[in-house]
Amino acid sequence: MSAEEFTYDPYAFSIFEGVDVDNHIIAIYSLEVEPGRDFLKIAEGLASEATTGTWIKVPTETSEIRKKYQAKVLGTYEIPSEGYQRVMIAVAHPIENFGPSMPMSMVLAGIAGNLFSVTAARVKLTDVFLPKNLVKEFKGPKFGIPGLRNMLNIHDRPLVGAILKPKTGMSPKEVAEVCYKAALGGADLIKDDEMQSDPSYCPRIERLHAVMEALDKAQEETGKKCLYALNITDRSDKMLEIAEKAVEEGANCLLINYITSGYENLRMVAEDPSVSVPLLAHPTMARALVRPENMGITYHTVKKLVRLCGADITILSSAYGKMYQPIREYFWSVHALRDPLYGIKSTLPALSGGVYPGLATQHVKDVGIDIMMIAGGGVLGHPMGVTAGVKAMVAAVEAAAKGIPLVEAAKTSQELKVAIDTWGVYEKPKEYIFKPK
Amino acid sequence: MSAEEFTYDPYAFSIFEGVDVDNHIIAIYSLEVEPGRDFLKIAEGLASEATTGTWIKVPTETSEIRKKYQAKVLGTYEIPSEGYQRVMIAVAHPIENFGPSMPMSMVLAGIAGNLFSVTAARVKLTDVFLPKNLVKEFKGPKFGIPGLRNMLNIHDRPLVGAILKPKTGMSPKEVAEVCYKAALGGADLIKDDEMQSDPSYCPRIERLHAVMEALDKAQEETGKKCLYALNITDRSDKMLEIAEKAVEEGANCLLINYITSGYENLRMVAEDPSVSVPLLAHPTMARALVRPENMGITYHTVKKLVRLCGADITILSSAYGKMYQPIREYFWSVHALRDPLYGIKSTLPALSGGVYPGLATQHVKDVGIDIMMIAGGGVLGHPMGVTAGVKAMVAAVEAAAKGIPLVEAAKTSQELKVAIDTWGVYEKPKEYIFKPK
Repeated sequence: MSAEEFTYDPYAFSIFEGVDVDNHIIAIYSLEVEPGRDFLKIAEGLASEATTGTWIKVPTETSEIRKKYQAKVLGTYEIPSEGYQRVMIAVAHPIENFGPSMPMSMVLAGIAGNLFSVTAARVKLTDVFLPKNLVKEFKGPKFGIPGLRNMLNIHDRPLVGAILKPKTGMSPKEVAEVCYKAALGGADLIKDDEMQSDPSYCPRIERLHAVMEALDKAQEETGKKCLYALNITDRSDKMLEIAEKAVEEGANCLLINYITSGYENLRMVAEDPSVSVPLLAHPTMARALVRPENMGITYHTVKKLVRLCGADITILSSAYGKMYQPIREYFWSVHALRDPLYGIKSTLPALSGGVYPGLATQHVKDVGIDIMMIAGGGVLGHPMGVTAGVKAMVAAVEAAAKGIPLVEAAKTSQELKVAIDTWGVYEKPKEYIFKPK
Repeated sequence: MSAEEFTYDPYAFSIFEGVDVDNHIIAIYSLEVEPGRDFLKIAEGLASEATTGTWIKVPTETSEIRKKYQAKVLGTYEIPSEGYQRVMIAVAHPIENFGPSMPMSMVLAGIAGNLFSVTAARVKLTDVFLPKNLVKEFKGPKFGIPGLRNMLNIHDRPLVGAILKPKTGMSPKEVAEVCYKAALGGADLIKDDEMQSDPSYCPRIERLHAVMEALDKAQEETGKKCLYALNITDRSDKMLEIAEKAVEEGANCLLINYITSGYENLRMVAEDPSVSVPLLAHPTMARALVRPENMGITYHTVKKLVRLCGADITILSSAYGKMYQPIREYFWSVHALRDPLYGIKSTLPALSGGVYPGLATQHVKDVGIDIMMIAGGGVLGHPMGVTAGVKAMVAAVEAAAKGIPLVEAAKTSQELKVAIDTWGVYEKPKEYIFKPK
C-alpha cells in the first residue's frame, strides 16, 4: 500500500524517540479545532504544509523526500473543552530545510508560517525546544547580564533605566537635558523611545553627541557610568552603517525595534564585530502576534528568539504596569531570556510599561535581581523632578534586593518616600497551594 | 486651565479638516472595548501612546510638542453590539515622527506598535490613508503589472504560475526537471516555495543554474519566456549581495518572505538599481497578524505596504482555496495592490493556496484579468503530468478572460477537460441586492 492510501500519512507521525533531536526544532502548538474535525488529520496537514506537502500529493513528493524533510507530529494532547476542540500538539521540524546559516526569516517561515492559514483550525505557537545544531549558528548577546553588570559595576541589585519622554517631539538639547538629570540620579541606562529614531527635528547623531556630552558631564559629578540606548531603527541597507558610525561617534548602547525591523536586522548588527556595545531590543508590535489567545506566537517564544539574535537587553512589559501582560508571559519570558541555552549569553529583561518604584519588591520576589526596572513616567514624572525620580527607583531596587520593605527604605530616602506617596507600593497577595489549615 | 485638567486632552482630538492631510497617515482602527469604559479616553490614550505620551504627563511633554507631534483622534464611531463596546476610530499620525527616509519599521512602530498592548481594549489596524509626502519616499515596484506583461508579452489574460512542490527536499536537478516541464506547458512564472531558500541539499545558486538552463531549453522549444522566482530570503547582511549575485548569474525574478524578513529588507532589494528583475513578495506568517478579528492588521493594509516597498508580484490567498481567506480581504487586497497610488506602480496579485483551473472564471469575475493564478498541487498534481497541468491552467485563464465557460473551453483542451474532471469548476452563487421579484 502506498503512503497516500493510509488514513494517516505514515511519514507524518513519530514518537519523540524516533526523531533526531539534535537536528529538529520541537515546536508545541495550541490548536482550536472546529467541532467534528479529525484533529489528527489537521496535525498531519500542519506538519506537511510546514515542510514538503501541499493540499494534494504530487508525484515529485517522493517517500524518500518525505522521510527526510517532512515535519513529524510527535504527539496530540486533547484538553477538555466545550464547543471547539482544544488540542496541544508537538511537531518536529527538520532544521536542514532552513539552510546552513539558519536565517531566522526561514526558521519562522517553517515553524510559524503558512500554518496560521489552515482553515479548519486556529493555531498558536506555544513553545519551542531548539536543538544545539541550530543554536550554534547564532552568536547571541555579546555581553549578557554579567557583561552588563561588569560594565556598569553594579552587581547586587536590579539595574535602573529611564525612558525618554515625551516619546516624540523633543530637540537634541531637550533630550540631553533629561539625560543629564537622569544620570545625576544614578541611572544605569537611558533609552530613546521606540518611536524616536531619526526625525528631522531631532537627528540621531546630533542627539547622540548632545546626550553623550551630558552623560560625560554627569559622570564627572557622580563617578558613575550610564548607558544611552540610541535608537538606530532604520532602513535595512543603512542600519549596519548607522550602527558602526554611532559607535565611532561615541554611542555606548544601541536600540533596535526588532519586530518591525525583523529579527535578522538585529542579528546583523549584533554579529558585526565592530559594534562593540550592548544592544537593546524593543518589541513594539510584538503584542499583535502574541496577544490573541488562539493564534500567533507566545511572548516567551518571541523572547527566546530575540536572545538568539543578540539582544543584551530587551524590553519586557511588567505584569503590573500600563500594558497588557499576563503574569505567565512575563514569568516564562524571563526564563527564556536567562536560563541556560547551550552557552548563549543571557539577555537582561528590562521590565517596563508603567513601572514605578513601588513595584521593586514585587518584581524581585517574582523573578530575582537580574532585571532592569525601566520607566518613563515613573521616573520623569516624579513630583521632585527627574533626578529625584531616578534616585527613588535606585533606592527602591536597592531595598528590594536586600529584602528591606520599601516603606522602611523610604525613611532614609525622601525621593522614595515621595514616590510611594504618589504611586503607592504594589504587593500581590501571596497564593498558597498547600497551606496547613 | 492647563491641558491636563480637561476631561479630554484638547491636543488629542480634531476634526478631519483640522489636520494637514499631506503630512499625516490617517489610520482606521477597530476597537473592542471593555463594557463600561469610556472609549473616548481609550482613543485619546492610543493617540498619545503612539506619539508623545505615556501613562502620566511628564513636564517635558510640553503643549508645543503635543500640538505638533501628537497623533489626533479624528472620529469615534460606535457599532451596535452586545457585551464589548465596538468602536471604529480614525487617528491622524504625523509622519514627521518617522524620520526623513520613512523606514517602514518606524512607520509600523507608530501606527501598529504599542497600541496593541493597551489593557482596556483590543485593537485592529483596519485601514490606512497614506499621504503623498510619505509615499514619495518609496520607489514602489520597478515593473508593475504593465512592465510584467510587456516582459512576458501576455496582455489579455491572467498570468499563470507554478509553485515548486514538494515545498522542501528536492535536489537542483529535480527542481530543474519540474521547471522544464512547467515551462513547456507555457507557464509565465515558476516560483520556489517560501520554505525553499538555501538548504544544503539544494543550494540556491546551483539550483538557479540548473533551472535557468532548463528554462532556456524550454524557451527554445516554445519561444516563450518564463520567469523563475528564486527565493533569496536570508540573513539581512547577505541579502543584497545574494540578490545582486543572483541577477549576475542569470536570475530573472527573486522571491522574498517579507513578513519574516521585515518590509525593509524587501525595500532594500527593490530599491537597489542593480537588481533589474521583478520581485515576488511572499507573505508567510502574515496570517498570524491578520487573522484575529479583534487584533492585528488587516490583510489589505499589509498588502498596501508591500506595494510601497517594491513588490512587483505578491502572493495572495484565493478566497476559494486551501487557505483561510475571507472574500473581503482578497477583494480589498487586490484594490490595495492595483488602484492608483500617487504614481506608485501596481503589484500583481498572485492568487494561490489550493488554486486549480476550475477557479479561473470566478477569479476573473471577481477581480478582472490583472492577476496571476499560481498553483503547486493544482498544476503539478494534474493526472496527465506537470506540462499538462500548466496547459490546463493556461486554457482556463484564456477562456475566462474571453468570457468562454470553462466546460466549453474544455472541448478543445484535453488537459483542461481532465483538470475539470478531477477538481471541478467553482462558481459562487450570484448575490442580488436589488432584484425585481
